[in-house]
Amino acid sequence: MLIELLRLGHRLPRDERISTHVALVARAFGASAITYTGQHDSGLEESVVRICERWGGKTISGKFSASYEKSAVSFIKSKKRAGFSIVHLTMYGMPLMEKISAIRACEKILIVVGSEQVPPEIYQLADYNISVTNQPHSEVAALAIVLDRLMDGKELKTGSEGFDLDGEISITPSERGKILKERPS
Amino acid sequence: MLIELLRLGHRLPRDERISTHVALVARAFGASAITYTGQHDSGLEESVVRICERWGGKTISGKFSASYEKSAVSFIKSKKRAGFSIVHLTMYGMPLMEKISAIRACEKILIVVGSEQVPPEIYQLADYNISVTNQPHSEVAALAIVLDRLMDGKELKTGSEGFDLDGEISITPSERGKILKERPS
Repeated sequence: MLIELLRLGHRLPRDERISTHVALVARAFGASAITYTGQHDSGLEESVVRICERWGGKTISGKFSASYEKSAVSFIKSKKRAGFSIVHLTMYGMPLMEKISAIRACEKILIVVGSEQVPPEIYQLADYNISVTNQPHSEVAALAIVLDRLMDGKELKTGSEGFDLDGEISITPSERGKILKERPS
Repeated sequence: MLIELLRLGHRLPRDERISTHVALVARAFGASAITYTGQHDSGLEESVVRICERWGGKTISGKFSASYEKSAVSFIKSKKRAGFSIVHLTMYGMPLMEKISAIRACEKILIVVGSEQVPPEIYQLADYNISVTNQPHSEVAALAIVLDRLMDGKELKTGSEGFDLDGEISITPSERGKILKERPS
């Protein structure tokens, strides 16, 4: 299953950290790429490149990447033509668990996460408008839960059962300390 | 199971939105309160009050609340004396799934989420240092996944199986629109 992400309406400086969190969750939970619209932000793209250089960015379709697009609508339309199903996360949408089997049957998925105001056209273009609870909380949390359910918790597994992002550095889990392992070059 | 949250080292304006997301995830995913240290921020507390007024804040131990504490260490120690188990989320910790059964057996849990640099003392005070993946991503996502696993996905359920936060307004899930329901007063 190929999963990509679209972050709508990135605003500076307001969304700087939230969009970075969205990108890092996408990477750590098994998505292959993030595209964003709104304000262009080379800082966001550089953060993603930096993390991928050190911590790895191997995905099922190449290296994890962040890129900018001007128009969300044209981007979504081009993804639909390329066979992607569009899953828009909104607290007004249908409960995730009612739609998860249908979404899991899709081969290619574009998850769309909004910022403040999402244009009505996005709701129309989406194949699924999905809510992760019908309460106001966080697009970062909603994305994590959706990816977790799509990946069947693979991101929480270790060793050969989990994701191998193929980084230069990695962590050895520990009860109380911080153990960082550098890959011998 | 009573779950409370401690957010460490809140900084303004840097953490304004991330800490709000942490608070809203805590509320929507079944925790009963958030306490934060770092800079005092009446805006954060007011946001939580405002959301609870409109969307509800009923928890198993009263109304969801946000409050400030000066010292994380004294606060954690007082919670330990009150019988709470301390679960500190850190990417250096032990994989969540290895410890989840032990944590689920606790009656009262204080989940601690850090900001940039967490003092070594917190790792020592914690009963569990827990990682949600060993990759850098987001405390908002980590918190959502931990609460989801502790609540066994209850936050995603609807009707009598889910949480009833008892709000003035609520959403009726819909395939394409936005349906907001006001409770008759």
